[in-house]
Amino acid sequence: MSAEILEKKKTLDLRKKHIGPSCKIFFSHDPIKIVRARGQYMYDEKGQRYLDCINNVAHVGHCHPDVVKAGAEQMELLNTNSRFLHDNLVLYAQRLQATLPNKLSVCYFVNSGSEANDLALRLALQYTGHKDIITLENAYHGHVSSLIDISPYKFHHLSDVEQNQFVHVAPSPDVYRGKYRADHPNPAKAYADDVKDIIGRVHEKGGKIAAFTAESLQSCGGQVIPPPGYFQQVAEHVRQAGGVFIADEVQVGFGRVGTHFWAFQLQGADFVPDIVTMGKPIGNGHPMSCVVTTKEVAEAFALSGMEYFNTFGGNPVSCAIGLAVLDVIVKEDLQGNALRVGQYLTELLEKQKEKHPLIGDVRGRGLFVGMELVKDRLKLTPATAENAEYFLFCRRLKEQYILLSADGPHRNVLKFKPPLCFTSEDADLVVEKIDHILTGVSMTLPLNQKHPRELKNPEQVFGPKLSCVRLDHLF
Amino acid sequence: MSAEILEKKKTLDLRKKHIGPSCKIFFSHDPIKIVRARGQYMYDEKGQRYLDCINNVAHVGHCHPDVVKAGAEQMELLNTNSRFLHDNLVLYAQRLQATLPNKLSVCYFVNSGSEANDLALRLALQYTGHKDIITLENAYHGHVSSLIDISPYKFHHLSDVEQNQFVHVAPSPDVYRGKYRADHPNPAKAYADDVKDIIGRVHEKGGKIAAFTAESLQSCGGQVIPPPGYFQQVAEHVRQAGGVFIADEVQVGFGRVGTHFWAFQLQGADFVPDIVTMGKPIGNGHPMSCVVTTKEVAEAFALSGMEYFNTFGGNPVSCAIGLAVLDVIVKEDLQGNALRVGQYLTELLEKQKEKHPLIGDVRGRGLFVGMELVKDRLKLTPATAENAEYFLFCRRLKEQYILLSADGPHRNVLKFKPPLCFTSEDADLVVEKIDHILTGVSMTLPLNQKHPRELKNPEQVFGPKLSCVRLDHLF
Repeated sequence: MSAEILEKKKTLDLRKKHIGPSCKIFFSHDPIKIVRARGQYMYDEKGQRYLDCINNVAHVGHCHPDVVKAGAEQMELLNTNSRFLHDNLVLYAQRLQATLPNKLSVCYFVNSGSEANDLALRLALQYTGHKDIITLENAYHGHVSSLIDISPYKFHHLSDVEQNQFVHVAPSPDVYRGKYRADHPNPAKAYADDVKDIIGRVHEKGGKIAAFTAESLQSCGGQVIPPPGYFQQVAEHVRQAGGVFIADEVQVGFGRVGTHFWAFQLQGADFVPDIVTMGKPIGNGHPMSCVVTTKEVAEAFALSGMEYFNTFGGNPVSCAIGLAVLDVIVKEDLQGNALRVGQYLTELLEKQKEKHPLIGDVRGRGLFVGMELVKDRLKLTPATAENAEYFLFCRRLKEQYILLSADGPHRNVLKFKPPLCFTSEDADLVVEKIDHILTGVSMTLPLNQKHPRELKNPEQVFGPKLSCVRLDHLF
Repeated sequence: MSAEILEKKKTLDLRKKHIGPSCKIFFSHDPIKIVRARGQYMYDEKGQRYLDCINNVAHVGHCHPDVVKAGAEQMELLNTNSRFLHDNLVLYAQRLQATLPNKLSVCYFVNSGSEANDLALRLALQYTGHKDIITLENAYHGHVSSLIDISPYKFHHLSDVEQNQFVHVAPSPDVYRGKYRADHPNPAKAYADDVKDIIGRVHEKGGKIAAFTAESLQSCGGQVIPPPGYFQQVAEHVRQAGGVFIADEVQVGFGRVGTHFWAFQLQGADFVPDIVTMGKPIGNGHPMSCVVTTKEVAEAFALSGMEYFNTFGGNPVSCAIGLAVLDVIVKEDLQGNALRVGQYLTELLEKQKEKHPLIGDVRGRGLFVGMELVKDRLKLTPATAENAEYFLFCRRLKEQYILLSADGPHRNVLKFKPPLCFTSEDADLVVEKIDHILTGVSMTLPLNQKHPRELKNPEQVFGPKLSCVRLDHLF
């Protein structure tokens, strides 16, 4: 199956007919048809190149030849379930373990971040015998039923009755916009104390904490970087209550943060979660994921007597691909590249912040960077990239052949999470385009003063296509 | 990554150290290390060939070259998420749709049967606004939390308190061992009336039925073939109550039953489910799955406002592989082969039944065949293949290099579900071995009379290794 077969319009028509309307498309008013990709670049049906700043799944670069080769060779040889012995499975488990603190030694291979996070919950419930879960505000942990229950990003619009009564939401440890900010003397302790308070309230009602679960850095929640020490203190409170700490590394693991292989390690060497879930980048796009936990948790889970069998999980092809991804990260020093290029990108964006009042905050670790847009730096009024008619940021970038997305509760955080082979030249390019767009905005649209409806001729700023279309389903 | 790298003992040691103990292995006392496979054959590290009668996932044959080629070529070109337009996605959806009744026209691509069945529940709950689910006795629908709730195969040993109160279990429509048997004047109606009664009891308690869910033929439940007309009558009762009918084709779809492409079609052309879930064979081992439903259900799901995004689901590689699998089924007439060879195998097994009183029932459709072992044909006392010390059936077959498994609530149903390229010679071979084993048993062990503990020298029958080892975790 190669490149384009159908006219773009036909593709779109068939998609409307046969794909669930809940499955959204990027830039729905003018979607992109991508037919090939390599490294940090994607190409449409006309051969136009896009710089990819968003596909964190294509971790070591789209279609990396080493990964493709490993997958293709193993597909030809054997692809079967893990009820047969196979070296790829155990070698891969051993390699993953070597990246983690010693006590995290037992793996379960599954197919997606959602399967991983669901299994993590099952492990926690079985190990503790408890039922209550604490999750973070704006968190997203996956799309299966049990995870929508613990994902305020998904369930926030549901009524109280529809929400799971065993799930409790703690404030997001966001020191820019959250409850305790950078000017707070000890935001880590303050946020952790909020978790402690929740535990107290759960106990008062006769509940018992099974787990606290959080992404090591919140991604969909708005590229939030918790203050160091927060996880340690939360873990202390949670373990005191008999619960476990689940670190969700599905979006942020595998060297993306640059200084460390796992984002939870940013909190300090003294922090070790009880369960770690991995996903998206693990197979560079191949459907695979993993849960790693301690021997104690794994043994308690086995004591239930219920077998855990996952048809595709840990098959020789997935493991061959997983091993190849780890090899490439080392061979090409992609973790080092994430650190260097991430730092460079962050510096460039910091300079943009000095220049453009719309940029309220730049925060990041390695090639996980967020740029938060505000209409007012004191009030932090979000400059929402998704809905505002006057601010079609990502769409403007797309017209410059740059793929960037926005997220967070107000959809005002631009998220940089490119393949780790992203270069400083790529950083220059995307920042140059951002500068150009923001300069256009600030020249013609004094902040806090004018709304595009007030502009006599908004096309001057945005061009005819962009001036009047509401940007639905951009992300 | 090719063939064997570690000594078998080292593989086993690493597995014990790094893989969750809940993940069971075939023949745990002497596991097999498989290093390559082709068609219906698997090969261990010494080059020994095994005839594979169990891997229904390797649907068109292990490592089919067309499927491998499609996957490898697409991996090299592009593998990304479904937020970009791609022809593979829509062409595959269109091709799948063409195998189904017209009204089943909207697809959601996911990564596993579990993700598919979880999404099916979400669709049903959202569409109906109801909460109660009816599932079948001994059913297995997957390993994520929501599916363990509807899988008595998994939850049967849990206490009532641990079971989901919205889940109601209907009798398995098993006309051999079930509540209404072959001698009943109308078992289809009788079993369907039981579902109707459950609906009545749910209504009395103020509940409302969201869905009835069943495998079109129960697999783990013991290769159960519901009497024709059962689904139609159940669907009528369920729809009357405002619920939907979910047909789980994860194990039995894609031409395995021979006469039809989908097993639910065995019930008659007048039966159309509201939701169909697909899995295992869909990608010949590649992690992918699908949910197909009606436009009405899909639109109701979208109305919730909650996006459905699945990171890997529907990626171009999965869809290329899915298309190749469909092509091979047609090109090699594998559905026809399933019909012909399945019929031949069933006839051979029927003859074995005439010869060996241990065989209580032979039932099957195409290459989905069950052979139920009983100690007494009148009382139907199960001759349990898994636990009985005297009856290590699958293990004996494995020593003859035949892979077969047993399942069902009593673990006494031998399950034939080989790759669809299985030949009549393969059928001859496995039945010859079965005959040989059963002849040994019946010669030395008069049924209903002797237990191996009473035998002076059980090694005469089973050889030294088999006479005294309890067969744990065989399946």
